[in-house]
Amino acid sequence: MTDLVTFGETMLRLSPPRGDRLETTRELAVQAGGAESNVAVGAARLGVDAAWLSKLPDSPLGRRVTSELRSHGVSPGVAWTDPAESRVGTYYLEHGGVPRGTNVIYDRADAAITTVEPDELPTETLTGAQWFHTTGITPALSPTAAATTTALLRHAGEAGVTRSFDLNYRSKLWEPDEAREAYAALFEHVDVLFVPRRDAREVLGRDGSAVEVAHGLATAHGFETVVVTRGDEGALALTDGDVYEQPVFEAETFDAIGTGDAFVAGFVAERLHGGDVSDALEWGAATAAVKRTTDGDLAVTTRAEVESVVAGGDEISR
Amino acid sequence: MTDLVTFGETMLRLSPPRGDRLETTRELAVQAGGAESNVAVGAARLGVDAAWLSKLPDSPLGRRVTSELRSHGVSPGVAWTDPAESRVGTYYLEHGGVPRGTNVIYDRADAAITTVEPDELPTETLTGAQWFHTTGITPALSPTAAATTTALLRHAGEAGVTRSFDLNYRSKLWEPDEAREAYAALFEHVDVLFVPRRDAREVLGRDGSAVEVAHGLATAHGFETVVVTRGDEGALALTDGDVYEQPVFEAETFDAIGTGDAFVAGFVAERLHGGDVSDALEWGAATAAVKRTTDGDLAVTTRAEVESVVAGGDEISR
Amino acid sequence: MTDLVTFGETMLRLSPPRGDRLETTRELAVQAGGAESNVAVGAARLGVDAAWLSKLPDSPLGRRVTSELRSHGVSPGVAWTDPAESRVGTYYLEHGGVPRGTNVIYDRADAAITTVEPDELPTETLTGAQWFHTTGITPALSPTAAATTTALLRHAGEAGVTRSFDLNYRSKLWEPDEAREAYAALFEHVDVLFVPRRDAREVLGRDGSAVEVAHGLATAHGFETVVVTRGDEGALALTDGDVYEQPVFEAETFDAIGTGDAFVAGFVAERLHGGDVSDALEWGAATAAVKRTTDGDLAVTTRAEVESVVAGGDEISR
Amino acid sequence: MTDLVTFGETMLRLSPPRGDRLETTRELAVQAGGAESNVAVGAARLGVDAAWLSKLPDSPLGRRVTSELRSHGVSPGVAWTDPAESRVGTYYLEHGGVPRGTNVIYDRADAAITTVEPDELPTETLTGAQWFHTTGITPALSPTAAATTTALLRHAGEAGVTRSFDLNYRSKLWEPDEAREAYAALFEHVDVLFVPRRDAREVLGRDGSAVEVAHGLATAHGFETVVVTRGDEGALALTDGDVYEQPVFEAETFDAIGTGDAFVAGFVAERLHGGDVSDALEWGAATAAVKRTTDGDLAVTTRAEVESVVAGGDEISR
Amino acid sequence: MTDLVTFGETMLRLSPPRGDRLETTRELAVQAGGAESNVAVGAARLGVDAAWLSKLPDSPLGRRVTSELRSHGVSPGVAWTDPAESRVGTYYLEHGGVPRGTNVIYDRADAAITTVEPDELPTETLTGAQWFHTTGITPALSPTAAATTTALLRHAGEAGVTRSFDLNYRSKLWEPDEAREAYAALFEHVDVLFVPRRDAREVLGRDGSAVEVAHGLATAHGFETVVVTRGDEGALALTDGDVYEQPVFEAETFDAIGTGDAFVAGFVAERLHGGDVSDALEWGAATAAVKRTTDGDLAVTTRAEVESVVAGGDEISR
Amino acid sequence: MTDLVTFGETMLRLSPPRGDRLETTRELAVQAGGAESNVAVGAARLGVDAAWLSKLPDSPLGRRVTSELRSHGVSPGVAWTDPAESRVGTYYLEHGGVPRGTNVIYDRADAAITTVEPDELPTETLTGAQWFHTTGITPALSPTAAATTTALLRHAGEAGVTRSFDLNYRSKLWEPDEAREAYAALFEHVDVLFVPRRDAREVLGRDGSAVEVAHGLATAHGFETVVVTRGDEGALALTDGDVYEQPVFEAETFDAIGTGDAFVAGFVAERLHGGDVSDALEWGAATAAVKRTTDGDLAVTTRAEVESVVAGGDEISR
Repeated sequence: MTDLVTFGETMLRLSPPRGDRLETTRELAVQAGGAESNVAVGAARLGVDAAWLSKLPDSPLGRRVTSELRSHGVSPGVAWTDPAESRVGTYYLEHGGVPRGTNVIYDRADAAITTVEPDELPTETLTGAQWFHTTGITPALSPTAAATTTALLRHAGEAGVTRSFDLNYRSKLWEPDEAREAYAALFEHVDVLFVPRRDAREVLGRDGSAVEVAHGLATAHGFETVVVTRGDEGALALTDGDVYEQPVFEAETFDAIGTGDAFVAGFVAERLHGGDVSDALEWGAATAAVKRTTDGDLAVTTRAEVESVVAGGDEISR
Repeated sequence: MTDLVTFGETMLRLSPPRGDRLETTRELAVQAGGAESNVAVGAARLGVDAAWLSKLPDSPLGRRVTSELRSHGVSPGVAWTDPAESRVGTYYLEHGGVPRGTNVIYDRADAAITTVEPDELPTETLTGAQWFHTTGITPALSPTAAATTTALLRHAGEAGVTRSFDLNYRSKLWEPDEAREAYAALFEHVDVLFVPRRDAREVLGRDGSAVEVAHGLATAHGFETVVVTRGDEGALALTDGDVYEQPVFEAETFDAIGTGDAFVAGFVAERLHGGDVSDALEWGAATAAVKRTTDGDLAVTTRAEVESVVAGGDEISR
Repeated sequence: MTDLVTFGETMLRLSPPRGDRLETTRELAVQAGGAESNVAVGAARLGVDAAWLSKLPDSPLGRRVTSELRSHGVSPGVAWTDPAESRVGTYYLEHGGVPRGTNVIYDRADAAITTVEPDELPTETLTGAQWFHTTGITPALSPTAAATTTALLRHAGEAGVTRSFDLNYRSKLWEPDEAREAYAALFEHVDVLFVPRRDAREVLGRDGSAVEVAHGLATAHGFETVVVTRGDEGALALTDGDVYEQPVFEAETFDAIGTGDAFVAGFVAERLHGGDVSDALEWGAATAAVKRTTDGDLAVTTRAEVESVVAGGDEISR
Repeated sequence: MTDLVTFGETMLRLSPPRGDRLETTRELAVQAGGAESNVAVGAARLGVDAAWLSKLPDSPLGRRVTSELRSHGVSPGVAWTDPAESRVGTYYLEHGGVPRGTNVIYDRADAAITTVEPDELPTETLTGAQWFHTTGITPALSPTAAATTTALLRHAGEAGVTRSFDLNYRSKLWEPDEAREAYAALFEHVDVLFVPRRDAREVLGRDGSAVEVAHGLATAHGFETVVVTRGDEGALALTDGDVYEQPVFEAETFDAIGTGDAFVAGFVAERLHGGDVSDALEWGAATAAVKRTTDGDLAVTTRAEVESVVAGGDEISR
Repeated sequence: MTDLVTFGETMLRLSPPRGDRLETTRELAVQAGGAESNVAVGAARLGVDAAWLSKLPDSPLGRRVTSELRSHGVSPGVAWTDPAESRVGTYYLEHGGVPRGTNVIYDRADAAITTVEPDELPTETLTGAQWFHTTGITPALSPTAAATTTALLRHAGEAGVTRSFDLNYRSKLWEPDEAREAYAALFEHVDVLFVPRRDAREVLGRDGSAVEVAHGLATAHGFETVVVTRGDEGALALTDGDVYEQPVFEAETFDAIGTGDAFVAGFVAERLHGGDVSDALEWGAATAAVKRTTDGDLAVTTRAEVESVVAGGDEISR
Repeated sequence: MTDLVTFGETMLRLSPPRGDRLETTRELAVQAGGAESNVAVGAARLGVDAAWLSKLPDSPLGRRVTSELRSHGVSPGVAWTDPAESRVGTYYLEHGGVPRGTNVIYDRADAAITTVEPDELPTETLTGAQWFHTTGITPALSPTAAATTTALLRHAGEAGVTRSFDLNYRSKLWEPDEAREAYAALFEHVDVLFVPRRDAREVLGRDGSAVEVAHGLATAHGFETVVVTRGDEGALALTDGDVYEQPVFEAETFDAIGTGDAFVAGFVAERLHGGDVSDALEWGAATAAVKRTTDGDLAVTTRAEVESVVAGGDEISR
């Protein structure tokens, strides 16, 4: 029985070796990456029976995506399309460092998911599931994808499934105004909101402290839980009127991409495992910390490892 | 002074290691590849002052293409576009072997070149040039690209530049009927035609022997020279009523992609170097043979090396 | 619903780069390999819902195995054990060529599977399955593994599941006499036998032509089908008194390891897909041919690709 | 003439690329690693004529070990065994970082060395040698290996060779009580003891300051010299009633594995080169610092380089 | 029209993977590196039309150098020589870290450039150019190279071209006294001097503060501008009696080699782009900072990227 | 006790990946290669106690050479020189294939060995040795190296050591006339001559059949044994008036470089092992065949493997 269902686009992530640049490289590492499948993978690795819904061309490139997700135990529920008519989104990632930073180039226009409709997807997996998760990236991809996002959230709500939503605002996909309007329409179908402090201010127009933001959003949209993330300052959750704070765990960062998704994965996995919101925040932070030490979008970890981080110890033994 | 100008799309070629498959690979080699820039590179390496016209996004990916062409001495004449509005075409190449063969997956829809217009390009490089080359791929990419192909051929003709055209029919881009009609409109602006025997039959509807095909096409369209290629059976040229035959040179094939472009490069380079059609065929065949021994689309060779193949000797010395 | 269940050991396969030798290498490619999971993977890739039963330490190395199998769609049914008490078998593979050949070094003693007992395994997956497959390697690993093999075959038979057995004699694991005796005890629980012509003679003591061997074995042990493989000479099947012959498909071999398992995978997949024994032989041969062109033990292919080989065509397109 | 003889197990160390994890990797770097051969290599590179005694299967994997040791100038004195009857120990090393840390998985059970007996080894190399070194790992491997350790220490003592012993407690191999008892029996044959402060407390039950520990151990067991190592706090030696302290040299750590062995190598090399205990501590610390900057277990360095670190300078020149 | 012309030796740079050492490595990365071509490449990437003059054997190794420079848009003006009579200089680079540091081994004796004479070079490119740059390495290579350096500086001066000179003292090539004398003879032909604070003291014998050094040198040799670099303390320029100071930009260093050349490239590019000395210092510092984050000698960057560093922001977006 | 001593230059061999070309590559594999050390390594791997005499700079590059030779069990007897005054020879190797073939570029001028004098070398290793081997490359490197070659051959003769000489004519080092004269002076100190049929004709001016060549040379110079190699046609030996013929063993060639040295290694090893000339030819041919299947100059093999080739069997087992 599937516990968690996520929905969204997964791309091929192409990245040159460290120190090398996209405009001169002769070699690209290939990995699967997408906010919602990142969450599914992270949760699956923490013991959750997880599925992921999406649309892909029935080609080696489309199967490249599902192959990697399956390897982590995620069940792909894919609307396969004619490869002559559609494509897999890709993104090019160049790790820099101060001062040039990390650079991401998207090549995701017209990806198969932009035409996804609810009835193409195996939405029956939602029946009996406990949790549904999607993010603010999907509605930005196309009007059709936005409508399908709404439909799935509504469907999940009707099936009594807890629905979480990670704002994940992407300035390369749309403008704040456009995004705010789209979010507002979705929020009525959301139970748990994850939102970065900065996006709350810049996109949703919510000033004030993180607590104030959480209260404001919860009041305005009736969220059961609001989790505000603040980068190095840690996360904060408001639920049933109670506020919980969670600092970040120290981590030697190898690759920061996917940290937020790992946080959500840890949070959801612990909630599904019976933990309360406070426990879930801690698991979120610990999963995120492990993620930072590994290459790729995915939180390649285990329950034992995250438990050990939560318990505070990391040991170098021989 | 530029001697040779080519025009067309160049893509990023992405290929997994030998024995690995696209749907499981974690690593892709990146190279630049495109029929017309392949010809420019091959000719440049044989001593020709070569330029290549195209349209690319002004991004690391666009510059990845020009960087590689420049390294071989080709001058890129690029209409740079806003990377937020356009993309670089890519193609995924998986080398197989009997029985599964080599597989190519194009991801070139909506590449920047599909919107290319003549006045974006530095067409002044054609003035004073001796040779212009393009292929049947470009007109298949979009009506705009087709119109620009015609305009450049016409412009070259007005400037007294010899114009060659490689049929390069791509069944993944259009249907034979559509292609035939487009070719017919272009042929009046072409002096030298390169055409595979098979495409002559299946696309142009020309049956009969290679000689008959050459005569038929020359008569119908007034070509100065027609070169019919027949794979392992070698090439044949008809010019001024004379027929020349050229067998292939033996080669241990490492990578067959780009063989036809290498042939054209060798042919054109030798013509520009003063050789007659017979010499040019021999240089074409020799350049193609060297190409097959190297990785990638490009004929990474030198005049000395091709001369040595033409002269018949390859030596293992130490 | 699972269609195919296989049972056996899967090892980590460690191999140096081509041209390099184990005794000097600094780099080993890691892949999962084991006769029975090779069959499960091959069949899963051809559309069969396949599971694989085994025993592994609950460690990153054990999970390395299941991760790779899952990526191809196989459901692992693993008895996970304490990693402090058990190990994952490994095998080192060095590709040579004439005259030194390919060398395999096993390091599989005391692997977790040697202690596997039926009640540790999720044998309920057999209920409702259509086919069960195991090989002559498993009973050679330990008396416990042999007893469990017998138990599973018996259990499958009681559940009305077709049972196939690939002799897979390994001279490094036991002597012919010992093997013959063990096989004889298992044969009564087997419906479909795969046996190399050479092993039939050297281990089972069956001389005569392949047809005679098949008849002799079928008569002696009551097999529904006997498939005799003869390397380059192709395979032969005897079923219901009818004999079918199947030549091999031409293939440029990149890695021959796993060819026999790919053959079984193709055969079983086609039988489960409704094909008769003759069709199944053809699918076996075609799957084996594709396998030879790829790196690793696994037949990384698709229905479409195998169909295309069966149909006789492999095309290099661009 | 051999100056230094060491005795112990050397394994194949298998490690994935940085950022990658054992459970997903497709590539493992192979290196030889073992506490006692690490010391032999480090000392040999610093000009000592060093031999190493052990037992290995006569296979490419066994020779892989000796090949690497020989490359650094160490003379292997190996009892070669039938590869069908024995194995080479391996260990899998995954470099992490805070918070998950470095993970080591041993697969060394039943390695050839567990059956090593003194008369299989070329113990004549001890005659005329000046120093013999072994560690607390070897006696933990098997009773036979423990007995052979004792025998070699006794033999070395009879031959007038200085005997050093590095406690090297491995919690994955035995319990503190068991270890303490075994150590106690060996200590009477040891002249120079290397012991980490933590193991002194947790395994040997010695509380108090490092000086007190050193005094206590020297008094109890009659050691000529006791060297107590304290990680980042540096080392301390007690010899002839005098105490010497040595801080660590600053180092940018690439790989910390083998640091302790490099320390011993530097110490022993300098003692054999005529330095006093104080000089030896400094060489130990400097060799350890260089080791940390390099990949693998081994201190790949030179006398000139260590001298330069001792002298305090490291220069980036061009 | 060429804006910038540089002159000097470019070598093949050969470096082992991080953590590996030259004396044990089996793999070397190959890159082109040389102070003057580093400047040409950096400036070309910042929009300057740059050429580089040198002498190389007409061999694959010589062409390996020009191929890489061309890829960045630099026009090579090479005196090609008989490869049987000359060689390409190489340098081996091993990245260490504290305490062993970075090690460079030159193998540049008798490189083709040691015989370079002015009339072999396409010095006509100087006519119409705006800037000529060379360094103190070239005169150290041979008396002939020194004479040619003088001749080119004189020729540039006669053509009204601004001439810059980077002291670049190399202690492996000559002694301070010898160098000082050679520099003195060249200084009369130099308009802009780049000099490290340390070399000013140790080679030119100029004590005092950086400002005093700049004033002293400007007064003594009539330089238009003197730029004194002080490593982490930033740079200082004296021009027309005014002093400008520039701190370094923060950078996570991947590879420090080429930092000084990147500084010069940024400085010259901004001067040619119309910036004043203060702007040029800032561009120099920013280009140097980006260089440090990339692998190799070259500043692989763009105007937009350096502008963004100058403007103070680096963003990690996704 | 050393059985075999060889003398000659060993270079660093630098080669790009297959399919890549020197003029575009970014990566070079590094290996040690030199005719005489190739023989020492091959013989050492076949059980001979082998030493190799040479001269190298005391640098990481010089030690890179000895490190690799030591790993195969060869004892280096090196005259170490000041790295500021000398260099290690290198050679660049590009594997092609028909028609471009394999290309070798030497960069060995002024290598340390060109100044080698007998009294720098540990010639005492010759005392008690059974065999001394050198080749026609060494005298071509410099007059000093030639004189030292003569001195060592004479010294070996006086010590009663069998002396073999492989003609190994290198057209890139000297002219036939010059070589012939040098060889003639050396031949009086040689007992066993290895000579390719072609060099016998083109350099030594000996026409006629291989047997006639052998007789002619044996008569003219008093060789005990003459071995004439004829590529694919196999080898022929004349000794004591008897003629032995040896065909080549079939081999799938991965890398042909070093085949001739492997032949000599196998021949010498078998002679030292007590085999007669006929056995030695067979071992030479078998060692050469194994060599062809491996990457690099060296015959990385074992007695067991060569015995198995001699016995005619190569098996692929699993």
